Amino acid sequence: MDRRSSITVIVRSVLAAGPLRRADLEARTGLSQPTIAKLTRALIDAGYLTETTAGGGPGRIGRPAATLDVHADREFFAGVKVTPGELIGVVTDLRAVVRVTAHAPLGDARTPPDVVRAIARLVTELRGGAARPVRGLGVSVAGDVDRTTGLARYEPFLGWHDVPLAALCTAETGLPTVADNDIRALTEAENWFGAGADARSFLLVAVGSGVTSGLAVDGRVLTGAHGVAGELGHVPVDRRGPKCYCGARGCLEAIASEPALLRRVAEITGIPAITLGRAIELARLGDPRVGEAFAEAGRAIGQAVGGVINLLGPELVVFSADHLDGFALLDPHIRAAIDTHAFGAAARATVEVRPLPFAQWARGAATVAIARHLTSVTV
Amino acid sequence: MDRRSSITVIVRSVLAAGPLRRADLEARTGLSQPTIAKLTRALIDAGYLTETTAGGGPGRIGRPAATLDVHADREFFAGVKVTPGELIGVVTDLRAVVRVTAHAPLGDARTPPDVVRAIARLVTELRGGAARPVRGLGVSVAGDVDRTTGLARYEPFLGWHDVPLAALCTAETGLPTVADNDIRALTEAENWFGAGADARSFLLVAVGSGVTSGLAVDGRVLTGAHGVAGELGHVPVDRRGPKCYCGARGCLEAIASEPALLRRVAEITGIPAITLGRAIELARLGDPRVGEAFAEAGRAIGQAVGGVINLLGPELVVFSADHLDGFALLDPHIRAAIDTHAFGAAARATVEVRPLPFAQWARGAATVAIARHLTSVTV
Repeated sequence: MDRRSSITVIVRSVLAAGPLRRADLEARTGLSQPTIAKLTRALIDAGYLTETTAGGGPGRIGRPAATLDVHADREFFAGVKVTPGELIGVVTDLRAVVRVTAHAPLGDARTPPDVVRAIARLVTELRGGAARPVRGLGVSVAGDVDRTTGLARYEPFLGWHDVPLAALCTAETGLPTVADNDIRALTEAENWFGAGADARSFLLVAVGSGVTSGLAVDGRVLTGAHGVAGELGHVPVDRRGPKCYCGARGCLEAIASEPALLRRVAEITGIPAITLGRAIELARLGDPRVGEAFAEAGRAIGQAVGGVINLLGPELVVFSADHLDGFALLDPHIRAAIDTHAFGAAARATVEVRPLPFAQWARGAATVAIARHLTSVTV
Repeated sequence: MDRRSSITVIVRSVLAAGPLRRADLEARTGLSQPTIAKLTRALIDAGYLTETTAGGGPGRIGRPAATLDVHADREFFAGVKVTPGELIGVVTDLRAVVRVTAHAPLGDARTPPDVVRAIARLVTELRGGAARPVRGLGVSVAGDVDRTTGLARYEPFLGWHDVPLAALCTAETGLPTVADNDIRALTEAENWFGAGADARSFLLVAVGSGVTSGLAVDGRVLTGAHGVAGELGHVPVDRRGPKCYCGARGCLEAIASEPALLRRVAEITGIPAITLGRAIELARLGDPRVGEAFAEAGRAIGQAVGGVINLLGPELVVFSADHLDGFALLDPHIRAAIDTHAFGAAARATVEVRPLPFAQWARGAATVAIARHLTSVTV
């Protein structure tokens, strides 16, 4: 491994699991003891790592081992999650702890120049609130994004095709920018600091305007050979199902996304443009047809996730639910369908539900910016 | 990395990509130059590696670099693929080149003791034909197999539950035995020597008595947190589809496996117990209903594979076809369905068809035995 990769591996290991002793770091990274000694010294000198020697208590034998931790305040990073109608932004420290949060309504702005200008204004606001210089920006959008080049190849909700998002944001903000798919960025953050700390492999599922997922196996987030992976929303679940905007029939997203569910409830109830809150209320009041619409969406999600479990055998499945009330109506049907479809020992996967609001998605974008920054650290 | 892991990594790298210069090995493994110098010397002394110094041709400047290769004849390995009715066995050299092949009919033998005794007899025959001592055995069966413990937790075609297959085979043959899922073992061989040499990530799909797959990402075959992965046959593709033996409805295997297809053709034609050959003939003669049965199976396969492409974004998809004639009837429908369902840039995955007869599957089992052996090499 070259020096730069070794530096990235060391900082990421301490970020994910610190404070760590040098011996732990050796075991985690596979790097040799002299390499670790040399590089951690350089990283301490450059302000990336701090060293603490705990006092040896009574009965402790020998010299207590020093532990290394990341110097969270060394520099900060901004992350912005773009949704149609609103930008959600955060500034995090080097440990991806959120230090500043801000939102900005987008109104009807949907064109790349308008959205990028709004991102730049939000980033200026975020930087104004941050106690430390911001070194990099991560921007996340839905759809097919090539993280390497920063090209948003296809964003279905804004109708973007081949937008050089990272380059545009760099030009407007002056910050090195990484653009990424939104759930993949969230999955990176979970991989470093959340689910990935508990499980060697996990599937993160988000149900909202779309249905999407992120996958991590053996500590790495799957990115796809061509930059696309985790598109759970376009897993076909019903060949006789409704047509999806992507052109195919029976995609999970065309059945179980929030808009698809609300269209179904609007048809059933005759209430045009019904809100999610009202639909949940009707289901809770016992309207069997509305309840069945939620059940149907839940079964479709569980069917698709059961298929993923059979393909990947993840240790953990995390459902990210913004609206826990709404998710509660889907939950039993999702779990029943997973139980039906999970094959053999794959059925042992743990299923969890956690609220992951958009500020966490913005933090995911900042995490990707931190990761990119770490690959350029030279000490 | 400890010495033993480093040895495994070195031998595997030379196996997969040899002959290699030490500098190539350094780049591939990330190990330091002194570690490589020391361990390759020990491996040459122990007979695992050979060293060749090519003569510098005219115009070559400097001393030609020595290349390392695996000493294929150092020791041999046996691999057996178990199918209901027949065992297929091979002996390979250390490079997984097949040196001896043998088959053994199983007749009605289905119980674990009977099948294990038949495996032992076949292994004795294989060892008799091998020019070198056989050091280990790999046995592969369908279904849910825990490679680590050698337990066949569920083999659907033989009706096995929790059979300690590796331990039984070791007791009967005296050889260290690894038991594995059959397609996963084949995927390991492809990962080392086949598709994996061309692509960083690939999906291997096999359609026969079942429908199954293996997945490799970044040079590693996915094994699942609980030992199950790649169960493409149990991806649900039609919620109103037929019931599968696993208990769920609409599994791909219940629609597109060879027995499922033949059941459908038997219904359509009224010919009970129709053979695959006869079904292919009828389709080729232009029977539209039989043609539609093949088309339906092809569409279901393409739909499921399209879903996998969206989830994993593999670089390459390889269909393993035993019966190329039969596969030709599925092929256009598979490809059309993949085209319909693959999302965004994920659609760029290359799709290939290759004959991978059962001797290749047995070689896969031998490859797993080689891999296990390499983890125990001490020099």
